[in-house]
This record gives sequence, C-alpha cells and structure tokens, in this order.
Amino acid sequence: MRVGWIGAGVMGRSMCGHVLRAGHEVYVYTRTKASADGLVAAGAHWCASPAEVAQKSEVVVSIVGYPHDVRAIYLEDGGIVANAAPGSVLVDMTTSSPSLAQEIAAAAAVRGIDALDAPVSGGDVGARNATLSIMVGGEAQALERVRPVLSCMGSTIRHMGPAGAGQHTKVCNQMLIAGTMIGMVESLLYAVSAGLSMEDVIAVIGSGAAGCWSVNNLGPRIARGDFDPGFFVKHFVKDMGIALEECRRMGLFVPGLALVEQLYQAAMAQGYAHLGTQSLYKVLCAMSGRREDGGK
Amino acid sequence: MRVGWIGAGVMGRSMCGHVLRAGHEVYVYTRTKASADGLVAAGAHWCASPAEVAQKSEVVVSIVGYPHDVRAIYLEDGGIVANAAPGSVLVDMTTSSPSLAQEIAAAAAVRGIDALDAPVSGGDVGARNATLSIMVGGEAQALERVRPVLSCMGSTIRHMGPAGAGQHTKVCNQMLIAGTMIGMVESLLYAVSAGLSMEDVIAVIGSGAAGCWSVNNLGPRIARGDFDPGFFVKHFVKDMGIALEECRRMGLFVPGLALVEQLYQAAMAQGYAHLGTQSLYKVLCAMSGRREDGGK
Repeated sequence: MRVGWIGAGVMGRSMCGHVLRAGHEVYVYTRTKASADGLVAAGAHWCASPAEVAQKSEVVVSIVGYPHDVRAIYLEDGGIVANAAPGSVLVDMTTSSPSLAQEIAAAAAVRGIDALDAPVSGGDVGARNATLSIMVGGEAQALERVRPVLSCMGSTIRHMGPAGAGQHTKVCNQMLIAGTMIGMVESLLYAVSAGLSMEDVIAVIGSGAAGCWSVNNLGPRIARGDFDPGFFVKHFVKDMGIALEECRRMGLFVPGLALVEQLYQAAMAQGYAHLGTQSLYKVLCAMSGRREDGGK
Repeated sequence: MRVGWIGAGVMGRSMCGHVLRAGHEVYVYTRTKASADGLVAAGAHWCASPAEVAQKSEVVVSIVGYPHDVRAIYLEDGGIVANAAPGSVLVDMTTSSPSLAQEIAAAAAVRGIDALDAPVSGGDVGARNATLSIMVGGEAQALERVRPVLSCMGSTIRHMGPAGAGQHTKVCNQMLIAGTMIGMVESLLYAVSAGLSMEDVIAVIGSGAAGCWSVNNLGPRIARGDFDPGFFVKHFVKDMGIALEECRRMGLFVPGLALVEQLYQAAMAQGYAHLGTQSLYKVLCAMSGRREDGGK
C-alpha cells in the first residue's frame, strides 16, 4: 500500500521502519527533516508537507507529540483532512484527546474519508519489537482496510468502539498507571526508610496481590538509582492532562489521578521532565527529607 | 512438633488445617470456641486460654484480627510471652504493627524466647492451597527452627530482616495495593462513563505497562457487579491505618496512601465494611453521580 507517515520520534521511527520492511511504499514528513534521514535512507520518499503526504497516500499514519500537533497536521489549512483523497484512511497513533479524535473523524467524514484513532501501549521496546498493543476507535470496516499496515507494528490490534474509543482506552491505561506509580514509589520509599532491601521487597510483593508491571519493571531501576527514561515524565504529564480534561468534561470524581498529576507537575518543576516516570520517587524523597537510599 | 495455634478466621482455619494434616500435634485456642470446632474434630486439642496454648507448645502461631488483639494475647497478664517455655518460638502471622512486633520480640527475648513476625500475602485462596508468601522478621535461626511448620502453609518463605521486618514488608505490600486499587477503580469508572466495555478495556490494558493483579483479578468482578469479599474493606482499612501510623513515625510524605485511606473510610461510612476492597468503585460512582454501569 502507499502509506503516508508523519512523525519520527523514538516510537514513530521504529514503527515506520517495520512498515517499510514489510514492503509498503512510504511517504514521510517530519517537522525536523533530519529525523526522517534514516527512513529515507531505507527507502521512504520525503515529502515537504503533511498535504503532500496526504496527496500521495492511500493510508496516512501519524504519531506526533501533543494534541495541538495533531490538530495542526490534520485540521489546519494545508492539513491532511483537506488534502487526502476521498476513500483514504487516516490513522492517528499519537496519544491524544478523545474529543479531538471525534472532531477529526467528523471533519474527515464530510470528505468521504475514514479517520481512526489508534494509540498504542508497549513503549519503545514494543515499538522496536513490533509487539505494540493498538487500541482502535472508528469504523470497524476502516480498521480492516488498514490492518495490513497496523499488523506490521503490533501484536494486539483491538477495535474498541466509535471514533475516540481508542483514545478513551488509552486514557484508562494511563489512569491505571498513575495509580500503580504512586503506590510503587510510596511503597519503595517506605521499604528503604524501614531498613529493608528494596530488591528483596520487590521480589516478595511483586508476584502477589500487589504485583504490577510498574514495581517489577521500574522498581528495580529505582533500586539501582537509574532514572533514565523509558517513558518521559513530560509525556506522562501530557497524558494525565488529557485524562483530567476528559474527566472534567464528563464530571467524574478522580482524586487519585488529580493527586498524581500534581506530583508529576512537581517533578517537572524540579527539572525531571526528561527523566523516566520512575523519578516520581525523587519527588517523594525530597518531600520526606530523605536521600534516595532512605537515609536522612 | 507441638504447635500452638491461636485464631481460626478464614485464613487461620485453612492454615492450621495444613499444619494438622502434616502430622504436627496442635493445641488451639480461639476467642469464640465454635470457630475451632472443625480443627478439634480434625484432631487439634482445645485449650482454654492463650496461656495454656503457650504452656503446651514448642511453637506458638497466631493469626488474629487487630494489633490490639495481638497485644492482648502476647503481652497481657496470662499472655503467651509470660507463659511460653524458654527456648520456644512465637510466630505472629497477623498483619499487625511493626513497632508492636519489635516490642513483643524484646519482651520475649528477656525470657529466652524467640518471637517472629510473619504476615502473609496470598489471601484466602493462598491459605487454602498452601501457596502463601510469608514475610518473616526476627532471628534467622529461629526461622529455621519453625520452617517445617511454615512450609506447611506457604510456598515462599523469606527472611526480611530483624524483628518488625516482616510487618514492614507487609506494609509495603498494602501501600502498593492502595495505589493499584485507586488507579483501577478510576480507570474503570472512566471506561464505562466513556461508553467502553469494561471487559474489553481490562483485556487490553491488563497485560501491558498498566497491568496489575488488581485490574486482572478484581476488575472483572467490578465489571459483573460482584462486590463480595475476597479481602474485606475493614481489614484493608486496618492495614492502611498501620501503614499511616508507621509513616508518621518515620516522617514520610505519602499522599497517595493518605488519600486512598480516606476514600476507604468513606466506603466504611457508606456501609461497605464487609464488602470486598473492589467496592471502592462504588464510592467513586456515588461521588461522580453515576450508576455502577456508568450511566447518570
């Protein structure tokens, strides 16, 4: 298929590489041209604008930064919706706002174009190994048409409902992570402060009713003082912002999410935007007047 | 071995049954005699008091309700510490206060007795199947002496450190669960409110970076409106109270735990003490003016 591709960050670069290697013809645009160099060297065709990508492709895939980036490439003058051919399918894989996904789908429908929201989970490792989970909102028929492209990147592709349902599912995912993160960092701060070995505690509690991906995967990093990003604080803050906005719109009481978002705002304020989400631990240590090994 | 046993609630009954079946001679006392009927019928000897249990046993195991129950049976006049023979080993498996565990160990040491704190995780199912995780604080040598008894009940037995370290580890476990619970119920409330299928969302998010025991085991119960106890709200409230007390003593900043404890106080106030911990979901629904299926 002729696949348009917009965005070549850590995730997008790996994902687009899989699509190229599967033999699809790829038309790529990125805001910073250099980001696409590797993809172009591997056979992708460079395009000067989102409009050009849209004009040349049957399917357009995007994975960019923030909802305002998504809005810009899809809905502004010279954007994808205005330039894609009727009958094409647009797939936004950015973690973005459910309401925006609905707005794009409605604008696309007017021109006879299908738009899907298809955010992913699985992180950089899942992107590299093509084992992402892809949560899809929009017309089920449109999903079937782009499945050959999505299946290059993900091992689980699930239709969740109408436009916005993919993003709603991703919100659920991030809300649950907010809970596991605060539970994990408080638990490990307690462990070291009580004189326990963090590694021993993780080994015992990680496999029972307290078990979670966060403690088993990020816990050991905290134990060895590794705060490098798997997932950036600044991106998680963006995701929680989207979640809170949707919760406000629906009138939902979500005090856990609200608290965790605030603590991550503190992480940002303390300079941890480009560290991994496990650096929430550093915020709690600072607030508790403790060193990261639990000492005072 | 001659094993004394105090407490025959849901957990204690199963656990003591395994000890009996392994061929140990069991001396049992429970506050309500009827609770021990099954164990006595299976060959345990009834004792009229904790003191009598202590006098007849080489090892005394207790699993009762609250820290004040633990204090009463161990430290009051006519209690276990005053009546056990020098050289015996006391094992409290109640989820109780680390500070109290240290106090009991110190009082026991004066009389030449070893006291271990050995709370468990794994719940009623783990107790029934003898697959509990047992987290042990106290002298490592004393643990080795009672290992033949503990291994009747648990598949993982881990020495965590000196007296109190078992209870400290259990605190870590419950603090992490507090996080996974709030994340889970907020996530599922969002899911139904956004018109998603809770089951579909659990299937997608339960296996990735948001995955946790809570969403995979309690999530499906919420989805089918089942709020029956695996683990009672009232017991979790007790455990979080112990955790908060220890955190205050150590001067730790734990806003997540403090929030979740308050929400469970609301669950108690709304009459859910004897429901399962997943009924936190009902509190958030009520606060959001939503039915449990997400409708208004």
